[in-house]
Amino acid sequence: MTSDPGDIRFDWQRRARTGIPEAVLAEGKSPDQLARILAEARARRTVLFLTRLPPEIATGFPDLDYDPISRTGIFGIPTRRPETDGKIAVVCAGSSDLPVAAEARRALQVFGTDAPLYADVGVAGLWRLMEVADELRQFRVLIAVAGMEGALFSVLAGLVPGLVIAVPSPVGYGVSAGGQVALTAALASCAPGVVTTNIGNGFGAAAAAWKVIGAG
Amino acid sequence: MTSDPGDIRFDWQRRARTGIPEAVLAEGKSPDQLARILAEARARRTVLFLTRLPPEIATGFPDLDYDPISRTGIFGIPTRRPETDGKIAVVCAGSSDLPVAAEARRALQVFGTDAPLYADVGVAGLWRLMEVADELRQFRVLIAVAGMEGALFSVLAGLVPGLVIAVPSPVGYGVSAGGQVALTAALASCAPGVVTTNIGNGFGAAAAAWKVIGAG
Amino acid sequence: MTSDPGDIRFDWQRRARTGIPEAVLAEGKSPDQLARILAEARARRTVLFLTRLPPEIATGFPDLDYDPISRTGIFGIPTRRPETDGKIAVVCAGSSDLPVAAEARRALQVFGTDAPLYADVGVAGLWRLMEVADELRQFRVLIAVAGMEGALFSVLAGLVPGLVIAVPSPVGYGVSAGGQVALTAALASCAPGVVTTNIGNGFGAAAAAWKVIGAG
Amino acid sequence: MTSDPGDIRFDWQRRARTGIPEAVLAEGKSPDQLARILAEARARRTVLFLTRLPPEIATGFPDLDYDPISRTGIFGIPTRRPETDGKIAVVCAGSSDLPVAAEARRALQVFGTDAPLYADVGVAGLWRLMEVADELRQFRVLIAVAGMEGALFSVLAGLVPGLVIAVPSPVGYGVSAGGQVALTAALASCAPGVVTTNIGNGFGAAAAAWKVIGAG
Amino acid sequence: MTSDPGDIRFDWQRRARTGIPEAVLAEGKSPDQLARILAEARARRTVLFLTRLPPEIATGFPDLDYDPISRTGIFGIPTRRPETDGKIAVVCAGSSDLPVAAEARRALQVFGTDAPLYADVGVAGLWRLMEVADELRQFRVLIAVAGMEGALFSVLAGLVPGLVIAVPSPVGYGVSAGGQVALTAALASCAPGVVTTNIGNGFGAAAAAWKVIGAG
Amino acid sequence: MTSDPGDIRFDWQRRARTGIPEAVLAEGKSPDQLARILAEARARRTVLFLTRLPPEIATGFPDLDYDPISRTGIFGIPTRRPETDGKIAVVCAGSSDLPVAAEARRALQVFGTDAPLYADVGVAGLWRLMEVADELRQFRVLIAVAGMEGALFSVLAGLVPGLVIAVPSPVGYGVSAGGQVALTAALASCAPGVVTTNIGNGFGAAAAAWKVIGAG
Amino acid sequence: MTSDPGDIRFDWQRRARTGIPEAVLAEGKSPDQLARILAEARARRTVLFLTRLPPEIATGFPDLDYDPISRTGIFGIPTRRPETDGKIAVVCAGSSDLPVAAEARRALQVFGTDAPLYADVGVAGLWRLMEVADELRQFRVLIAVAGMEGALFSVLAGLVPGLVIAVPSPVGYGVSAGGQVALTAALASCAPGVVTTNIGNGFGAAAAAWKVIGAG
Amino acid sequence: MTSDPGDIRFDWQRRARTGIPEAVLAEGKSPDQLARILAEARARRTVLFLTRLPPEIATGFPDLDYDPISRTGIFGIPTRRPETDGKIAVVCAGSSDLPVAAEARRALQVFGTDAPLYADVGVAGLWRLMEVADELRQFRVLIAVAGMEGALFSVLAGLVPGLVIAVPSPVGYGVSAGGQVALTAALASCAPGVVTTNIGNGFGAAAAAWKVIGAG
Repeated sequence: MTSDPGDIRFDWQRRARTGIPEAVLAEGKSPDQLARILAEARARRTVLFLTRLPPEIATGFPDLDYDPISRTGIFGIPTRRPETDGKIAVVCAGSSDLPVAAEARRALQVFGTDAPLYADVGVAGLWRLMEVADELRQFRVLIAVAGMEGALFSVLAGLVPGLVIAVPSPVGYGVSAGGQVALTAALASCAPGVVTTNIGNGFGAAAAAWKVIGAG
Repeated sequence: MTSDPGDIRFDWQRRARTGIPEAVLAEGKSPDQLARILAEARARRTVLFLTRLPPEIATGFPDLDYDPISRTGIFGIPTRRPETDGKIAVVCAGSSDLPVAAEARRALQVFGTDAPLYADVGVAGLWRLMEVADELRQFRVLIAVAGMEGALFSVLAGLVPGLVIAVPSPVGYGVSAGGQVALTAALASCAPGVVTTNIGNGFGAAAAAWKVIGAG
Repeated sequence: MTSDPGDIRFDWQRRARTGIPEAVLAEGKSPDQLARILAEARARRTVLFLTRLPPEIATGFPDLDYDPISRTGIFGIPTRRPETDGKIAVVCAGSSDLPVAAEARRALQVFGTDAPLYADVGVAGLWRLMEVADELRQFRVLIAVAGMEGALFSVLAGLVPGLVIAVPSPVGYGVSAGGQVALTAALASCAPGVVTTNIGNGFGAAAAAWKVIGAG
Repeated sequence: MTSDPGDIRFDWQRRARTGIPEAVLAEGKSPDQLARILAEARARRTVLFLTRLPPEIATGFPDLDYDPISRTGIFGIPTRRPETDGKIAVVCAGSSDLPVAAEARRALQVFGTDAPLYADVGVAGLWRLMEVADELRQFRVLIAVAGMEGALFSVLAGLVPGLVIAVPSPVGYGVSAGGQVALTAALASCAPGVVTTNIGNGFGAAAAAWKVIGAG
Repeated sequence: MTSDPGDIRFDWQRRARTGIPEAVLAEGKSPDQLARILAEARARRTVLFLTRLPPEIATGFPDLDYDPISRTGIFGIPTRRPETDGKIAVVCAGSSDLPVAAEARRALQVFGTDAPLYADVGVAGLWRLMEVADELRQFRVLIAVAGMEGALFSVLAGLVPGLVIAVPSPVGYGVSAGGQVALTAALASCAPGVVTTNIGNGFGAAAAAWKVIGAG
Repeated sequence: MTSDPGDIRFDWQRRARTGIPEAVLAEGKSPDQLARILAEARARRTVLFLTRLPPEIATGFPDLDYDPISRTGIFGIPTRRPETDGKIAVVCAGSSDLPVAAEARRALQVFGTDAPLYADVGVAGLWRLMEVADELRQFRVLIAVAGMEGALFSVLAGLVPGLVIAVPSPVGYGVSAGGQVALTAALASCAPGVVTTNIGNGFGAAAAAWKVIGAG
Repeated sequence: MTSDPGDIRFDWQRRARTGIPEAVLAEGKSPDQLARILAEARARRTVLFLTRLPPEIATGFPDLDYDPISRTGIFGIPTRRPETDGKIAVVCAGSSDLPVAAEARRALQVFGTDAPLYADVGVAGLWRLMEVADELRQFRVLIAVAGMEGALFSVLAGLVPGLVIAVPSPVGYGVSAGGQVALTAALASCAPGVVTTNIGNGFGAAAAAWKVIGAG
Repeated sequence: MTSDPGDIRFDWQRRARTGIPEAVLAEGKSPDQLARILAEARARRTVLFLTRLPPEIATGFPDLDYDPISRTGIFGIPTRRPETDGKIAVVCAGSSDLPVAAEARRALQVFGTDAPLYADVGVAGLWRLMEVADELRQFRVLIAVAGMEGALFSVLAGLVPGLVIAVPSPVGYGVSAGGQVALTAALASCAPGVVTTNIGNGFGAAAAAWKVIGAG
């Protein structure tokens, strides 16, 4: 006997049930497994979102819309839902946070909306955040991405009425390597109402934001 | 010199700025400090919410509406906003999670809404959750409270379209003592869109839920 | 002096004493050490099971039955014990858990039984587990493999009378990287009677299952 | 509003579904909640097992069979199932492990069987374990309780054919305070087939043992 | 033999060597040990600073200047050095941080300077910090005390030219219990030049500040 | 059934086998269990050493030689072995380390030797250690007790030819609470040949020292 | 849409506001992002300091002054400020700490000062530190770099009147791998006034030292 | 300026002072640094021991006696001290522990003694250890190397009168990856007198053993 992974029972009904389409965590899956998943998506004519897809594997799937910064792939053409634009923004502390921020924006694109990006608004130079504070107050949801000490989450949530969804970013070294400090800072935030996802989970933050605006 | 804590600079404008009224983490504050805070609230004729208030200290403030299960105090009469009812529910896995669930419900009461409680829907007896699944699908936000292994978060989020805000509860012993396992389970949830607060932070979950329904 | 590892004193009597044949953790052993072990197995005409055997080393041993998914090698021809079939099943949450599930199935094959695999029954799409629940209730032991938040362990154990042996899988990222969250979720399970092995220890779970059905 | 815990939805069908009767983790529940649970058990004429019940609370329930060492209460008269005797033994390393060992034995008593106790067989004086090794080889399941470094689990599992269920005990100080070392030692055991429960979870080990002997 | 702690060899020359007078961590010392230390200080006519001195023990030493908020005692009359005033300020995020802030201020008083306190400048209500930013820019050293997520450290250090010495405060619950999150946030700060002391070490921060202004 | 702890199988042959007499970790044992152990020691006319014995329990055993600083009890009259004096010294960093140092000295007294104590030789005032360095170079074994950052272990081991056995002491607060920092500092020491025991394990260090001088 | 990182909003005013010029953590940034940053620095004719810059990326920027030991790059010609020389020294325990020590010295060079290096003064051979103690007493700030157990921090701070800024170095293996032990040793130091930066943060220590000498 | 590591101040007098010759942790040092160290050793005609020396660097130093299993290099010809033979043995649990065991044996060879190796005596097959127990009882020191759960340390120390120095080995996966479980098991050992070194520190164990036999 060799291990035979068998058929994949995909949760194609997820969108109907929860409002969020199925996505695939590509990391740890073999090219064979991914090929089988894409074949089934093609057969079902459905849109599929792949996260944590290494570029060397992505090249094997030329019909994927692949973005190397977020390491995400979009299979199929998402349906635009322009009435949802302007409700969700993505904010990040520094340019090292862009991969996570990009995963969130790409996921939102799959869902059907375009979310603007406010980059480089880290709190050590507070004027950068203050410059855009009034704009940020217009959004219903702010997906905030930060690594290091994650102070952005609390400062931002003290400035805006929208829901702040913190996405800790695996940026830093020493104690902050891996994003653990930013994660605990989000959870311990002194600003009420900050909620958090797993480290680097831009897709999860996008899914939550999509539910908040009631567009699932 | 003896330490003189000085005046308390309270953030009374928070509601205008962020939609969430100021609340006080009573734990670690002296009765003197709390008395000064309440005096100022009285002078400003504002409503104030106190969390983690030990019962032996609460008895010194008879004009507080004190709830011993959630260990919360409400000072003043919150304004009811009945149009917000029916949008937020609180769900908990077992009766040991009731203190945290109650903190969330009390906070929502301060904000102006009544949130129903679905208790004892832990996943080891799945039929209990299934029995109320259709009801739960009606809410825009579900505040889910669970300790132990926190499996409720993922199962619930796979069943409903509303946003699931996980509140890990410090229930358990051994590895789950303090709520750490439930917290990491919420963060690692395989169901997309689950967001999390700090362990035991029922108030924070309520604040986030309030923002979601746009009632800040 | 150069280090001389000396002779290997293998525990060839283990099967007689404990019911479980000797297996070799190949990881960290040099090709020389493995060659010596196989030579001795050949001399003793015994069956040997090798786990965590990297493919680049396995190619040096062409008479091994090597499976690249589980990274296990079987040396010799195991004795089939068909009376043990139908008592043990392997269940896993997602396709990323297949390597660990396959290690368990291969070990059972070495012991003498075939265990069916139920894949992709993660709890975020509960219907997939429900579809097979009646089948799963027929087994005396269920080896459950899951990473991420490990909610499968509790949900499954609440549905079936058989013993659930949880095998945390090193699947996930951020807080769940390495399988630590799934491990603690298994240990903290609210469903009574779940037992756990080390992260990724499919062989250990198979050995325990084999003892449960009294076939050692 | 004061928090109203509402009715308790107990999982009274658990025995039919999983073979294990419902038990109550009393720690963290108020006397009121416990009284309501017992009233319902009385109404249903069912047996109930309470764990981690503090003695000062137990005295308020005189019709409980309370054991102060294991801090467990048995409500009602369990049905003896003598055909199950002689299949399960409880083994512990030192007298400080007796509370956990006693919880396991009391749970087995609720299920219907008597399990003998082998105490003080810690590995630092190996002759104590060797003296009883032949006896221990007769059991189908051995619930092993140990704190400190938990070496008993591996040594025992290397000597007997039965399934070893390790229950780490919160005995020790410094690095071993709380049972964490014994837990990880059980998980990392070099003896194949050891399975583990949460620290101090004598009830869980008993439930698993009961499933192993197929008496659920 | 009973344990005889022997004489105490105190480091009375420390001030000459390092610029910082000897202080005593009272926690964990018996009243007898403390009495012997004070007797020697009296004999040497020296000033002594005691930290973490429980109030119930302090009452036994009526000639101590005891402050219950910081739990510090000053023995003897410190020499005022007014030329050092105006160089060091203490800033804290909330009123729960006052005990640690007070320890720092009391230590500075022992050294010979008065440091003003800026309390309640937590970042969730940023206007409170902004109101005093110009004042804070006048100091050479800012001892910043914060618990929870410790975002104050980074925001403050981005606003002022003086050295920010972060003192994490053991304020919070869940993940931030014990001050660990604030500590790692200080270490991971994105604002260059923040330095950190142990959690709650107001005395250490004062000693460092004293060295910075060259007044040792 | 109530839990019946049964008879205690004590390892009375340990001294013959390993050179170290049996000792009892009293913490976590009930007065009943301790009384039974002492009765058996009395019957066997053997010397027994009890560690971590709370004073309130010790008062119930008036024929114990109890030392409240080390919280140890000696039952019976140890045999003095004067030829072993002068070979082992106990060194500690501060007066808060005295309880652990005293446990080591008391254990050595039970074994038969008197070990001098060098207290208050912490490295922040290095002259104190230097003053006694020549004396310390005369001993074959130095039991070094330190909490906080445990720098004493490395400095001492760089100065003396004897074996340094590090005993981390649970002294400190914040990151060093519980002795974890001192423990890891001992393990990571840059001075070759430092060996370590568990935090607070003065008895273990004494046992090791006794073996080093070959007097077991 | 592909992720478009957008423009970089750099904090070019940082020097005016905080006394420390902007530096760039190169690790995790793409060559494209770095090229854009350097182009902007060139346009602004400003000096820029890059840390954690991998050599394989540095070769793409030939006008950088790149140092492979510290992995830092200096863009532009820093302004020398000779009046600041002689106030700051860098001290390190062993030659493995040189990369971190070199980052601190390079940062100081960017600020405008030359700081001498005292290498190989680890405490296991204390005479090496003692030989230079008088010299070290002349500096206002000592940046101390050490890995392993970090005992240097406490010993040094007990010998000199200047401020000791500890920089834990990621040197060691086993428990000290990654620098965690040295970090906690610095925080727990028994010598008053030691302050700490993140593991490996030579730049941060230099920034703090620069503020101490009031040269920002 | 480029970083200039300067001269290396080696502790060549260590042997005279502490009985242990200087050794070099090669890991993390550049080939240049190692070449300079060896040049100085050659000039001083001294023996030098290098640990954790990667094979690809060792090939650059052909006059080193290099052992690839332990990854150690010996420079120069150690002086044999045959009177020390027969006092120290090295014991290891499995063949994966051989690298660490070999480091200890090579260090002892540098010191001047030959220590026999007892391999493959893991406790899961206890007969292997029992077979050699009488031999092991002849040694004054036993360096015990084990990974996984480290049960060997306690079992061995319960059988022999010599000092057991535990060296945790970084063997295992899941919870035991890196050797942490074996380390804590050694520290928490129920057998009195076990002492421990850092994970993988064969050299340190050898140095301690050398001090025990008084041959420094």
